[in-house]
Amino acid sequence: MSVRIGIVGYGNLGRGLESAVRQNPDLELCAVFTRRDPGSITLRTPGVPVGSMERLDSWQGKLDVLVLCGGSATDLPVQTPELAARFNVVDSFDTHADIPQHFARVDAAAKASGHTALISAGWDPGLFSLARLYMGAALPEGADYTFWGRGVSQGHSDAIRRVPGVKDARQYTIPKEEALGAVRAGEQPDLTTRDKHLRECFVVAEEGADKAEIERAICEMPKYFADYDTIVHFVDEETLLREHGGIPHGGFVIRSGRTGLQKENGQIMEFSLKLDSNPEFTSSVLAACARAVARLNGEGQTGCKTMFDLPPAYLSGLSAEELRAHLL
Amino acid sequence: MSVRIGIVGYGNLGRGLESAVRQNPDLELCAVFTRRDPGSITLRTPGVPVGSMERLDSWQGKLDVLVLCGGSATDLPVQTPELAARFNVVDSFDTHADIPQHFARVDAAAKASGHTALISAGWDPGLFSLARLYMGAALPEGADYTFWGRGVSQGHSDAIRRVPGVKDARQYTIPKEEALGAVRAGEQPDLTTRDKHLRECFVVAEEGADKAEIERAICEMPKYFADYDTIVHFVDEETLLREHGGIPHGGFVIRSGRTGLQKENGQIMEFSLKLDSNPEFTSSVLAACARAVARLNGEGQTGCKTMFDLPPAYLSGLSAEELRAHLL
Repeated sequence: MSVRIGIVGYGNLGRGLESAVRQNPDLELCAVFTRRDPGSITLRTPGVPVGSMERLDSWQGKLDVLVLCGGSATDLPVQTPELAARFNVVDSFDTHADIPQHFARVDAAAKASGHTALISAGWDPGLFSLARLYMGAALPEGADYTFWGRGVSQGHSDAIRRVPGVKDARQYTIPKEEALGAVRAGEQPDLTTRDKHLRECFVVAEEGADKAEIERAICEMPKYFADYDTIVHFVDEETLLREHGGIPHGGFVIRSGRTGLQKENGQIMEFSLKLDSNPEFTSSVLAACARAVARLNGEGQTGCKTMFDLPPAYLSGLSAEELRAHLL
Repeated sequence: MSVRIGIVGYGNLGRGLESAVRQNPDLELCAVFTRRDPGSITLRTPGVPVGSMERLDSWQGKLDVLVLCGGSATDLPVQTPELAARFNVVDSFDTHADIPQHFARVDAAAKASGHTALISAGWDPGLFSLARLYMGAALPEGADYTFWGRGVSQGHSDAIRRVPGVKDARQYTIPKEEALGAVRAGEQPDLTTRDKHLRECFVVAEEGADKAEIERAICEMPKYFADYDTIVHFVDEETLLREHGGIPHGGFVIRSGRTGLQKENGQIMEFSLKLDSNPEFTSSVLAACARAVARLNGEGQTGCKTMFDLPPAYLSGLSAEELRAHLL
């Protein structure tokens, strides 16, 4: 029997989920919910209804899991606890510092109503978090390094767009090869923010704008750019759309540890992603998590969970026997 | 309260475990068991008793988990089911094709006696298996590639030592950069055995032996070398001991998948290990698994498990709150 999925929010992540569900024969997309006018939205999957958020309750009992595809800034802190009181849910809440608080609120709502919620799924938090956990468990004495990129940072691109004279922009976060190399060599270096990542910006200036002033404003912007080596390229609008229209991302989690009675042996573990589409990959992970949440709820495991709590086998569409025979 | 560990078998893996337990403050090494004369063994940890296998039963109730550090060829197929009837156990059974049968026998013994057994832990099977599972769940449409090395293959080194005229030998399995590059580029190549790995052999010949004949015998050896590009170096005994005395290993699991309604986006996931000491790393994973087994058994989860069944958090010495706050 397939897992009946509802998607809440039809932006990049929601569209990614629509596509991911089709790659999993045991998942079924049953409805998409939006705060916009449902009539204004055309899904790429014929026959699936689009409903308004207000009508969600009429779907109780007809959906196994809701996948929440909103943003972490304002959508999920409200939506996830609210909806966890009525449905099983998965979200990709990614404000790392606020996870304990988000967890507590979602856990209370889900436990009280007998639902299962999985928060902070995706790749970071998500698969990268799992990598940090497994690596730390295998090598208790060592140092963790997480690098992001090469990839588009939406937040940094938006920050550039707010600079006067900027029409459009795209910012890439790029890990520095030198730092990666030192970590992989087992040197356990102390790395500053500037040592780890480079920020490369492609900027479309408004006509007549002072480009030198724009570049200065970007490079000196506190938090976003001031602590980094930043490269600014001015390009025309066509070039930006043509060459920088994708949403690639990726990154590296590396643990450099030592074992042996005298710590005589170096051991390096690395997990990395190279993604053409960040939202499609994230939503692919969310789809697998929806399967796991349906199973946990079926077993009576309610409350809030993270990927740390999921037996890995629950993420897979294969049976335990198939997994042992073919993947172990 | 610490997890009380007993080690069965004091070879490379058993010694690695002795060292790994010291890196985990919540684990305690209580005893080592051997088939040899216990008096002939001096642990590197003062005060820990060495006992004979026959006396194991007198330790019932005094140990939480036995970690079985024997080999997969003859030790574990017998020991794991036998001991799972009397103790919670962890093993590193790595004969992939025989895992389903091993699982069934251990599961029956553990279930009947109310114990918990974890089989096939380590890195392959183990962490590499987990990588294959997570990657396949995230990218259902794609291809998996596992490469091993650069590292010492004990089986291949032993095979060379059986060639007439060979005094000693060390064989390294080396992944081919070209194949790795094609996989990382998302080409999803079909790779033959010869495409994926190279075999490099360092051989000490007996005095007066026919080196050309030794080289021919190695390169044409069915199963072990005939299907590979093989490089043979003759070295003197001192060089072999000095430069090839370690037991390094490692490898790569890569999944190359596609997402999007038209499969328009390539997504690459990679997990890799670069290990100075293969047995010390494997035993570090076994130590974390022993912690998880103690916890599962405490919860009444009995029978045979694999790393696929373990909530990742159970492997860690950190609490769920600490994990969410610091690693998620």
